[in-house]
Amino acid sequence: MARLPDENIHPVATGRAAETVAQHQDPQDLVFWSGWFCPFNQRVWIALEERGIPYQYKEVNPYKKEPQFLMLNPKGLVPTVEYQDKALYESIVLCEFLEDAYPTYKPSLLPSDPYERARVRIWIDHVTKNMLQAWQRLLMAQDKAKADAARSDLYDAQRKFAAQVKGPYFVGEALSLADVMVAPWVAREYVLEQHRGYDRAAAGGEWKAYAERLSGRESVVKTTSEADKLQVIYDRYLVDEAQSEAARAIRSGHMMP
Amino acid sequence: MARLPDENIHPVATGRAAETVAQHQDPQDLVFWSGWFCPFNQRVWIALEERGIPYQYKEVNPYKKEPQFLMLNPKGLVPTVEYQDKALYESIVLCEFLEDAYPTYKPSLLPSDPYERARVRIWIDHVTKNMLQAWQRLLMAQDKAKADAARSDLYDAQRKFAAQVKGPYFVGEALSLADVMVAPWVAREYVLEQHRGYDRAAAGGEWKAYAERLSGRESVVKTTSEADKLQVIYDRYLVDEAQSEAARAIRSGHMMP
Repeated sequence: MARLPDENIHPVATGRAAETVAQHQDPQDLVFWSGWFCPFNQRVWIALEERGIPYQYKEVNPYKKEPQFLMLNPKGLVPTVEYQDKALYESIVLCEFLEDAYPTYKPSLLPSDPYERARVRIWIDHVTKNMLQAWQRLLMAQDKAKADAARSDLYDAQRKFAAQVKGPYFVGEALSLADVMVAPWVAREYVLEQHRGYDRAAAGGEWKAYAERLSGRESVVKTTSEADKLQVIYDRYLVDEAQSEAARAIRSGHMMP
Repeated sequence: MARLPDENIHPVATGRAAETVAQHQDPQDLVFWSGWFCPFNQRVWIALEERGIPYQYKEVNPYKKEPQFLMLNPKGLVPTVEYQDKALYESIVLCEFLEDAYPTYKPSLLPSDPYERARVRIWIDHVTKNMLQAWQRLLMAQDKAKADAARSDLYDAQRKFAAQVKGPYFVGEALSLADVMVAPWVAREYVLEQHRGYDRAAAGGEWKAYAERLSGRESVVKTTSEADKLQVIYDRYLVDEAQSEAARAIRSGHMMP
């Protein structure tokens, strides 16, 4: 890894996440090819943990991808789920896949009522199109005007989402995929607080209470690595030097993939 | 409607689509609030027709939205499905909703195998992120360089998709949501052929054969209005004067919603 600009990135999960990794080393039908630092990845990890689905955790070093992984998924993206020797990817698709492939593992993260299922999916779409775009623009903003605009958009997106939360979670008592899709970014809000003038309370009391509840959820905590290791990753975004697909998309004015 | 810039838009479906509308005027549990010209809308219409789900068709005039519709869906977007007095929207979410809410209506448009369902969803994501963005950029390109780049991206996206088609349709013999998501744009390729130098064959023989099959499918034909009425809509995009959400997004360099 020497000489690569990102060689300082810690290669494996740490803290509570490392304990979770250690418990998932035995071979299983489902292999979870993961990047410990990636929020899209954490969505799938949370879903696996919430539902108690047996999985084998394999860390993918993004700067030194194993041939075995690249043969499975030539795109080389995490999260990838290996299932019966075939690769599946895209975090939302993967969470839906876990519902379809493991129907007997409870709790399901999709409500049984068709209207409520659709409501969950509509608001996941809001997270993708509005909340995360604003999040990433705020993270990467290099001047005050851009930061102010992005922060305002983020508060707006969070406020709209919070207004849909029945409480304590999106559909009520049970956790659902709507919460899972939001959780990794909630768990990283401290980066925006420390560096971009973000304040949870400014998105409203409903968002603040929801975000605190979600970031304290056991499945979120046990898939989260130490903050200082994550900070190294975010430092590159904060100075606008990150080279991930998401970073390049936002920089060029496009939506994050 | 007088004095509005888009007053020349035909207010209702025509041709085969008008016949289909006429057959769906009786009150039903499900009301399909539709814009006859909108490709996102046509996705849901195709799914309703393929599965024989009872629905009442109501046309929404985009420049004169009825108060009843705006009360139901303050966003005022089509397609909207009214189900038990509640509004649902977003074309992909709606097609998934029809699967969930009408499980006894056959054929299902999602395969039963979890891996295949995930594969369908992964490639729907490809359609959203790659194929449709290139399509719209090509449509709205105002100079040769931009048109060439967009056309090349479109061919590339279509070639990749076609390579995944098992034949005759995406998952094999049965139509699935992967096909449904693509069909409305395939049915409109003639606009790009006439005005933007697009050639189906240039995307490869596999794409050409698939596109011909799909555009001739009965559910696609019976939800398609007369070409000259649609042309009036596309004329505005071709000269880059359209004001839809999609048009503004592409113009500003962002992804289409």
